[in-house]
Amino acid sequence: MAAVTSMACRSAVALSSVSRPSSALRAAAPRASRTGRRSVNVQSAVELDYDVKVFDKELVSFAEKEEYIIRGGRDKFSKLPAAFAGIKSVGVIGWGSQAPAQAQNMKDSFAEAGMDTKVIIGLRPDSPSCDEARAVGFTEADGTLGEVFDVISKVDMVVLLISDAAQAKLYPRILAAMKPGSTLGLSHGFLLGVLQNDGVDFRKDINVVLVAPKGMGPSVRRLYEQGKEVNGAGINASYAVHQDATGTAADIAVGWAVAVGAPFAFATTLESEYKSDIYGERAVLLGAVHGIVESLYRRYTRQGMSDEEAFRQSVESITGPITRIISRDGMLGVYAQFNDADKKIFEQAYSASFGPAMDICYEIYEDVACGNEIKSVVNAVERFGRWPMGKIDQTHMWQVGQKVRAERKEEDIPINPFTAGVYIATMMATVQTLQEKGHPYSEICNESIIEAVDSLNPYMHARGVAFMVDNCSYTARLGSRKWAPRFDYVLDQQAYVAVDAGKQTDAEVIQAFKSHPVHSALAACAAMRPSVDISVGGDNDNTGVGAGAARTDFRSVAATVA
Amino acid sequence: MAAVTSMACRSAVALSSVSRPSSALRAAAPRASRTGRRSVNVQSAVELDYDVKVFDKELVSFAEKEEYIIRGGRDKFSKLPAAFAGIKSVGVIGWGSQAPAQAQNMKDSFAEAGMDTKVIIGLRPDSPSCDEARAVGFTEADGTLGEVFDVISKVDMVVLLISDAAQAKLYPRILAAMKPGSTLGLSHGFLLGVLQNDGVDFRKDINVVLVAPKGMGPSVRRLYEQGKEVNGAGINASYAVHQDATGTAADIAVGWAVAVGAPFAFATTLESEYKSDIYGERAVLLGAVHGIVESLYRRYTRQGMSDEEAFRQSVESITGPITRIISRDGMLGVYAQFNDADKKIFEQAYSASFGPAMDICYEIYEDVACGNEIKSVVNAVERFGRWPMGKIDQTHMWQVGQKVRAERKEEDIPINPFTAGVYIATMMATVQTLQEKGHPYSEICNESIIEAVDSLNPYMHARGVAFMVDNCSYTARLGSRKWAPRFDYVLDQQAYVAVDAGKQTDAEVIQAFKSHPVHSALAACAAMRPSVDISVGGDNDNTGVGAGAARTDFRSVAATVA
Repeated sequence: MAAVTSMACRSAVALSSVSRPSSALRAAAPRASRTGRRSVNVQSAVELDYDVKVFDKELVSFAEKEEYIIRGGRDKFSKLPAAFAGIKSVGVIGWGSQAPAQAQNMKDSFAEAGMDTKVIIGLRPDSPSCDEARAVGFTEADGTLGEVFDVISKVDMVVLLISDAAQAKLYPRILAAMKPGSTLGLSHGFLLGVLQNDGVDFRKDINVVLVAPKGMGPSVRRLYEQGKEVNGAGINASYAVHQDATGTAADIAVGWAVAVGAPFAFATTLESEYKSDIYGERAVLLGAVHGIVESLYRRYTRQGMSDEEAFRQSVESITGPITRIISRDGMLGVYAQFNDADKKIFEQAYSASFGPAMDICYEIYEDVACGNEIKSVVNAVERFGRWPMGKIDQTHMWQVGQKVRAERKEEDIPINPFTAGVYIATMMATVQTLQEKGHPYSEICNESIIEAVDSLNPYMHARGVAFMVDNCSYTARLGSRKWAPRFDYVLDQQAYVAVDAGKQTDAEVIQAFKSHPVHSALAACAAMRPSVDISVGGDNDNTGVGAGAARTDFRSVAATVA
Repeated sequence: MAAVTSMACRSAVALSSVSRPSSALRAAAPRASRTGRRSVNVQSAVELDYDVKVFDKELVSFAEKEEYIIRGGRDKFSKLPAAFAGIKSVGVIGWGSQAPAQAQNMKDSFAEAGMDTKVIIGLRPDSPSCDEARAVGFTEADGTLGEVFDVISKVDMVVLLISDAAQAKLYPRILAAMKPGSTLGLSHGFLLGVLQNDGVDFRKDINVVLVAPKGMGPSVRRLYEQGKEVNGAGINASYAVHQDATGTAADIAVGWAVAVGAPFAFATTLESEYKSDIYGERAVLLGAVHGIVESLYRRYTRQGMSDEEAFRQSVESITGPITRIISRDGMLGVYAQFNDADKKIFEQAYSASFGPAMDICYEIYEDVACGNEIKSVVNAVERFGRWPMGKIDQTHMWQVGQKVRAERKEEDIPINPFTAGVYIATMMATVQTLQEKGHPYSEICNESIIEAVDSLNPYMHARGVAFMVDNCSYTARLGSRKWAPRFDYVLDQQAYVAVDAGKQTDAEVIQAFKSHPVHSALAACAAMRPSVDISVGGDNDNTGVGAGAARTDFRSVAATVA
């Protein structure tokens, strides 16, 4: 295995952090566009600012663009009482991946800040999740566990963490049950997409805010706990204010982000968030990485490798060393550590794969942006009663993977230059598409790179890519199952065919990769990432993987909450 | 190879053909529903009837249901002058697959009927297709070749045969150019889907009718020519009346079907037609068959077969003997010719594949019915300028195929029982979904079985499945590329895994297959099929394949007509 060298761009971080009084910026706060559905360009972050009073904003350069971010951490808990002024109770609805983490983190943070704001879990009374909630201290006896709509009707803030499909089905009843002047908190803009498809809007007398932690629930909890020892550990989040009925919505949103343990919060809009999130998990985060390794495994076995070696040269290479190098030294770091011969192979694979990957990335993005993807998810969940989603990790390849992982010596995993070229080309296509569609760099880096290398790929390394897919949300699983085979086929039919036909490397494509501004933006983001590593269990340890196996089985939409 | 035995159900054809005076039925003619978009059920054919005066309707039993059909043939040409009363000119717009066939057939039929109705081709003046049109006798000199919008504005009937994407882009200008009281003829309901997505309707002062030949353009022409010798040869068509501004639209539609050579015309609606058509080509007709053979080829090579043998046991088996047996003796005919051991293998493969295939078939149907698929096609074509569609037939498997075909001995091609089980399960899933969604049997049989075994599969047998995909319309190619990999993955991940895990054959699933009413409906349809076989060229003969290689290359939407 070639030695991992440090990446040049790391030292070129353009992170200028200037604290400014937030009052000077209030006037600039435009409301997120709700009419730009047909136009796929989302609002540029340079214009994106919210009326935050309690917390301080910092202006940060991501490559050529500036964004406001807000720094969290345990030393900011003292601001939580002001941020949550008037909010005596927060109802966390559901108990999936995010809810246990966010509910416990908020409860701990409120206690730490000396607040009497209650965190109340809302579940249907016969839900098997009630026992899990009770086990971590939420009980009917002290009024912190109740029936969904009863909780919604009483609390000052509803943090709605039921599945996307359940939100799509139940939103009329949920919105109707909320108190006037209360706050609806979402961790995903999906519901806005549903409302846009249905041609309706949120009721006007409530706040609608978003805090989207950039990691799975279990990571949100684990790093929060680690943050008690190391200030700054935690999962970053994006936040948005979609409706500000009370004039305090921005501080509620940021307070929520800080309370769940985000070391940094990036501004976005509901629309920009749901588009980039639903897109990202279909592209390199989940769908594409699955399709890539299926196509490479097939290619390598056809070329004569043993099953085990093909698995190591494809899956293991990506989820192990390639992921670790990107996390530490960026994408250019992977390139830099190859010798000249391997650089040529990387370039050839990258050059042949980038265009086909862009083709599919654009298709995904536009299918998400026009509402198709959300409509398909809602339709698919309706069909689960007849055709539950089967698991996908029982094919021959993933059986081989289990054996390879059992015998793994981490330091012997190869960094295959062809594999790296295909994977990084697809990662760059995911980035480039978001950039062309106008997303801010904080969001681009998180939804294309950071969530991959710091959150999902390490789990994939522990349990396999297919297992990871089987343990995601319905929206992510459906999307991954839909788009993985598209990446597989397009790479096989267009990219590998071109390589095998001896097509020349396109120097312009390689130059565009090397000089892309995302490298410095990523380095700027890297400076804000958690200061500890997440530990992940192996094949026999379910801890921290999708909040346990229960999440892999279908529950009917009605059963989820009602 | 096992001997092919005759299928029992062939003799059980429930074809009761009763000619009735059409006047007695006029009152029953309901207009096709244009509002039922959200409800996926299309109008049931038992209620479907149009106000046909010139031609005689016949009541035909397809399995348990009755439908009206209209018999064509050269002996009905004498009715064409009455059917086309008032139509002095027909403008055929475009020169793709259907246009050369339909234009020449109509011109020949009008001449045969002693009519002076002119057929005029509409193309943009610098289109390379102009030379092709001139070569078969349409010229500016005699006024039978002109500029698109000039032709549209002058003719009494516009037969709009430009690509789906071009229709989506140009329809406002096309509709505006038409004469009041003229007739818009479509060979695909796609445009209605576009209008529904756009929330608009056809102008009210024109007729809107459909004639959809159940075969590719070259087959429509070839069989028409063969029909000059053998009356009854020709491609069947469905027809529909969507708007009847003149009170004569039904006879115009049927007259058009007869003039292009349909031996039988089946009633449908624009909505039912576009849903079943767009769905069918994504399912077993094109997308599914491609995904099936990719997954089987991979499976067989993994099991130790040589590349050539795996190709023969998968692709060759389906497009050769399995197709021929279905065409002659139905799906049960394939089952009947197996010995007991092979019947068991067929049943195991069928049982494991049917559910997963249904899952994807339902997803396709609902994505088509809710407008997603049409929106995706329109978006995709907009991206062609940046990412033209590449060909897909250059992968290793299809290179092997070329070699296998070159050395082919037709009589040595195996009928693999596992392959047959997977393929026929997918064909039945395609059927079952259309049936559950309320389509008439004539449409079900055509869009799931007949078009496969009598039109597309023979071309695939001659040139390969991937080549066939590369030579279809954009809508079909895009759909096939989208859904083939989904069938591939779902079969690999769900069906083959279940078989390899020794999952028992589900006797109910097999019983449902054996007793399905579609077998007798298909036999009823078979009695109405062309009485001659279509000849298809091989690897070095482009005749009749997608009207030539020109159709495989992208032309911008603007370039297509304007």
